[in-house]
Formats: sequence, structure tokens, C-alpha cells
Amino acid sequence: MQVGMFQTPFIRPERSARQVFEWAIQQAIHADKIGFSEYWIGEHATLNWESIPSPELVIAAAALQTSQIKLGPLAHLLPYHHPSTLAIQTAWTSQILEGRYMLGVANGAYPTDAALRGITDMSKNHAMMFEAIQQMEKIWKGEPFQEQGEFWKVGFPEPNPKKPFRDTRPWNGKMTMAMTGLSAPSPSIAFAGEHGYLPASVYAGNAFLRSHFETYHEKMAAQGRKADRSMHRVVRDVIVADTDEEARKLAVDGGIAEAWRQYIKPTYERFGVLQGLLHDPSVDPSDVDGDYLAEHVWIVGSVETVRQKIDAWFDDLGGPFGTLLIYSHDYIDNPEPWERSMELLAKEVAPNLSDAKVAVAG
Amino acid sequence: MQVGMFQTPFIRPERSARQVFEWAIQQAIHADKIGFSEYWIGEHATLNWESIPSPELVIAAAALQTSQIKLGPLAHLLPYHHPSTLAIQTAWTSQILEGRYMLGVANGAYPTDAALRGITDMSKNHAMMFEAIQQMEKIWKGEPFQEQGEFWKVGFPEPNPKKPFRDTRPWNGKMTMAMTGLSAPSPSIAFAGEHGYLPASVYAGNAFLRSHFETYHEKMAAQGRKADRSMHRVVRDVIVADTDEEARKLAVDGGIAEAWRQYIKPTYERFGVLQGLLHDPSVDPSDVDGDYLAEHVWIVGSVETVRQKIDAWFDDLGGPFGTLLIYSHDYIDNPEPWERSMELLAKEVAPNLSDAKVAVAG
Repeated sequence: MQVGMFQTPFIRPERSARQVFEWAIQQAIHADKIGFSEYWIGEHATLNWESIPSPELVIAAAALQTSQIKLGPLAHLLPYHHPSTLAIQTAWTSQILEGRYMLGVANGAYPTDAALRGITDMSKNHAMMFEAIQQMEKIWKGEPFQEQGEFWKVGFPEPNPKKPFRDTRPWNGKMTMAMTGLSAPSPSIAFAGEHGYLPASVYAGNAFLRSHFETYHEKMAAQGRKADRSMHRVVRDVIVADTDEEARKLAVDGGIAEAWRQYIKPTYERFGVLQGLLHDPSVDPSDVDGDYLAEHVWIVGSVETVRQKIDAWFDDLGGPFGTLLIYSHDYIDNPEPWERSMELLAKEVAPNLSDAKVAVAG
Repeated sequence: MQVGMFQTPFIRPERSARQVFEWAIQQAIHADKIGFSEYWIGEHATLNWESIPSPELVIAAAALQTSQIKLGPLAHLLPYHHPSTLAIQTAWTSQILEGRYMLGVANGAYPTDAALRGITDMSKNHAMMFEAIQQMEKIWKGEPFQEQGEFWKVGFPEPNPKKPFRDTRPWNGKMTMAMTGLSAPSPSIAFAGEHGYLPASVYAGNAFLRSHFETYHEKMAAQGRKADRSMHRVVRDVIVADTDEEARKLAVDGGIAEAWRQYIKPTYERFGVLQGLLHDPSVDPSDVDGDYLAEHVWIVGSVETVRQKIDAWFDDLGGPFGTLLIYSHDYIDNPEPWERSMELLAKEVAPNLSDAKVAVAG
């Protein structure tokens, strides 16, 4: 199992834009240094808890200060960009990163992000995403066309031998695409399977995860593509420390608990997915506090505890998956224990899982 | 007179995207260190000699590695972006830079950049720019509205006390805007004066410059705003070395001569502005080579020579202007003499001009 990070970002709203930006870059550099394989960054124009509107700016700032980690937006919300301009920008970033770029896409779920773009009825967002993807893929070929779509006019200019173009194609001519899924059945995970995109499941219980694995496998197979568990990313909170007590304190008294209390739990309740995270359906959602989450939802403990918990999780899922993505949380005021937690997870836990070899072998 | 840089970029087309990106950031960091006041970056999707499609990515990458220099796109081509998304991104960058951001805007002059966006008739580009500016200014207020313009639908969401928004306004609530002008009369310089934007004149002879100064002054005055020479940026090539011979060699054998031969001269001929740069109308344009340019168009020489040439230039213009912006050229393979030229200009030439005190006093 590989380890990566998802910088949504879950950072307290009172932080300044510069603090958010600095933290996102600091985390990318640290993640790269300790061997994380991937670093994804969210995009939301209006939200106060997921407050990075332009993930590409973080990627650009981290590009030359990292060496092995792959970087990507998760996700660019396609209805809210001119497809040509986004195609050009992402292709350029992929060239700069020389193979270390991945492009997550989504149709946008938050009405306030949509209203900013004059979209007060979001029923066409999926159609917009689909049109944008098709137009971007045409542009990435670098061959002349003009097209009036339902939502955008795009094209590629006729060549002029006296004034050749810059190479506007993605690195190696191919863009690696990704999508996230949360609930089940997940239309996004289905879409990812249909198009051969990387699937990233935001953890909302094992039942949903199993559904994602299955959906992806089926949709990939229907297109004649082979899917295996190593292709799956699962996003879940993990905290590791030298002892169980220290890990629990870092979680329950730290940025992760604050993010869940103020933002993630209310959001999951609104999206109707909190229920899937409860270990017993009789639990009262109002009892879901830091202590409950540390026990039943996050994976918290010493290296050995976390190793055992992840092994047990894999057993319950019928096997491992490819990449565990942890959320980045707000440990800006005291980053050391948090960054050490990341390091223990990558260097001590992941290589010692019972199923580690299986997952790497795919 | 202050000194700044314009990274269009004039970099050989055979350089990789990563080289372009690295050079642009390296130059920003150096410019900041030696006291340049501004660093501007061009935007073109398709051009092979001005090959930065997303100037904001360079700005983001330079943001935390610079401390005093102001950074800005020159210019975002407004018809090619969703105005809401660009408003949000530029406001975020201005927050990150905490006062060190300026936003250059333009309507786009290159048909291939336009064709990429499905625009094969550019006659509406100016109207698109104007609508985009008005929409962005509304969005920057952060107050709810919905608007169907001629080209875009934009808005700002209704507030929700239970889910407050991120602060989406520019730093200090105000965006500093800028526009460039090349020919004369310049509609862009007129537009800048009408709207209180900073004017940046690309040098195409003193007659055009005088026209820009005049136009800007008139348009500002018509709006009840006071304009003075210190507000003007003038973009012109300058090379300084320890001796006249070294400076001439750095220019004529270097990236600057290559850019002019391969790209700038043909472009100026196409735009019909080469004539204004000739010291005598009888010069045959085919004789305009590196030697001619070093003598009559660029300002090349030792510290003392360049100081005298700029003083003479000011005399001819009837006084100094505020900021000299030099182009960045491709000295990637041997940056030291080029970066020393920048340093001599900022530290030895600019503070010792006869008119230096006048310009600073405004």
C-alpha cells in the first residue's frame, strides 16, 4: 500500500490565504521528502473550510521543491472553467512536472460555487463536465478543429509553418485523469471506470467502499480494461504516534477533531453519509464526537496499533487497495507531531502491513 | 526611476516547459533580491516565443521566495477566461501576496490564442474584455447578485449565516489593475486612463511614448484623476556590463539578439511598429540587425554609458517616467552576466540618473 495526502484543505477559516497557501506547500514538500506517492489538492471558490480556489497555484509552487511525489487537483470543477484555458493550463503543468501530474475532475456539488458562475440550477453540471472533458481531450491532441458545443465554443488553430505553436499537449501526450466518489452507488466512480480514470473513494464506511470497488471493476471490464485493487485510492484519516495515548491526544485535541466538529460532520450529515461511518446503527449522531471518531472512524494509535487496524480493515474489505490518502488537517501552530505522524505512517506502518506485498504486486 | 522586469517570456522555443518555468522563477527571485520593484509575466496559450500560458503559476511559485517585489500577469487575456473563476483566482493571489499583486488585463491580439477558444472573429474581444472587467469588479465586492451578460453569466451567492464564505475579495478590498500599450494612438492606454489603471508602454519610439503620456494624462484628468509621469512604466531592452565592449557582446551574441532576430522584429513588422524604432526613416528594415539594435534601439553599455543614454532619453521625452521595465531574455545557459546586468542597472545606473530624484518625487 502506498500513502498519499489529500489537501482539501481542512484549515480553520480564521487562517489567512497566505497561511493556507504556505501550509499546503509545506505539507507537499514534507510529503515528498518522506515518500508519500501522491498529493491532491481540492478546489472550491467560496467555501471557508475548503478554501483553496486554485489548486494549480499550490502545485506550481510545490513543483520545483519536490522531486518524486505526484501532484494533482482533486478536483477541478469543470463547469466553472473555460475548457480551452483549463486544458492548456493543466497540460502546461503536466509538462512542468514531467510525469508527476494527475488531473482530478468533478462536476461541482456546492451551490455557492455554482452561483458565483451564474449557475443557479445545477441540473446541467454533469452534462457540462462531460462536454468539457470531451473538448479538453480534443484540444490536447493539438490538431485543428472548431466546435460549438452546448455550453462552450472551443477549437484548435490551423497550423502556420511560419509561426509554429508551442507544444500544448500534456506530458507524453496523455493526461492521467482521476475522480472521487463518496456515496454509493457512486456515479463518479462509475464514470471513472467507464473512462479509465483513477478512482479515489472518500471513506464513508466499508459497505460504500466495497460498492466502489465493484462498480469500478464492472465498468472497466465493460470497456475491456482490467481493474485491480491497486488502482484504488481511499481517503481516510489516520494519526500515528509513538504511543496510543499520544496519537489519541494529537487527534482529539488537534486540528482533525476541530475540522470534524465544525465542518466535516455537518457536511456528511447534509450529504446523508454519516450513517455509513457508524459502527452500530443505533448510535445517536449527536454522540459522534472526537472520542467516538478516534475509536471508530479515524485510524489512531501507535505504529503497531495502526498496523493492526489497517490489516483488520483490509480483512474486512476482502483485501488491500493501492493507495491510502490521508487528509491534511490544521496543525499549523505545531506541525512537528503531525508531520511525524505522516512519517511514521509512510515509513513504519505501510511497509509492515501483512498485505503490503500483495497490494504492490497488484 | 524604479526598475522592473517583463517576463513575456522571450525564451527560445526549443526550451522545455520546465526550463521556461524555472527561468521565470529564477529571474523573479533574482529581481527581488537586487531591488527590482516589479515583475510582470505574459500570457499566451499557443505562441512558441511567449510561451507561458498561465502567468499565475509563475507568480504562485515565486510568491513565497520573494519579499518586496510586486508580481503580476501582463496580461490576463480576459476573453479567454471565465470571469468569475479569474476574479476568484486573482483575488486569492492578491491575498497570498498581501499587497504585492497587480493585475494586467488585455483583450488578446493573437488569432491563434483566440481560435483555441473558438473565437475566429476577434471583433468582439474588446467588448468581452470590458464585460469581464465589470463582472469581476462586481464579484470582488462579495455582495449577492446574478447577471446574464452578453458573453457570460456570473454572480455572487446569497449569504448563509450557517455556512459563511471564505473572504473572496482582493487584498485590502481593491485590485490594482494595469494595461499595456504599443502603437499610437493607443486605445489601451486611453482605457487605462479612463479607469485609473497603471499604464505600461512597450517602447516603440519616443513619438509613441509621448503620445501615451499625453493620452493617459488627458483621460485621467477627464475623470478628475491626477496623472503624473511617475505612474508610467516603459518596457525597453537594457544591457549593462563593466565595459561597453562586454555589454555589446552580451547583447549581440546573446539571447536578446536571438529573440529580436527570430521573433520580436518580425512581430513588430507585422504590427507595423518597427518604423518608429528606426533613428532615421531611410534605414532599410533588413539592415536592422543586432548591431543596429544595440546602437539605436536597446540601451547597451557600461554603467556610465547607460546612465548617459537614459539621461539623454529623458531629455528627449521632456522628463523621466516612473518605472523602466526590461524584458527578460534567454540567458539560461549562462545566467551570470545577464543577472549582473540587471544588478548594475538597479544598483548603479538607476540611483545615479540626473532625473532620478525628480521621478521619485513624482
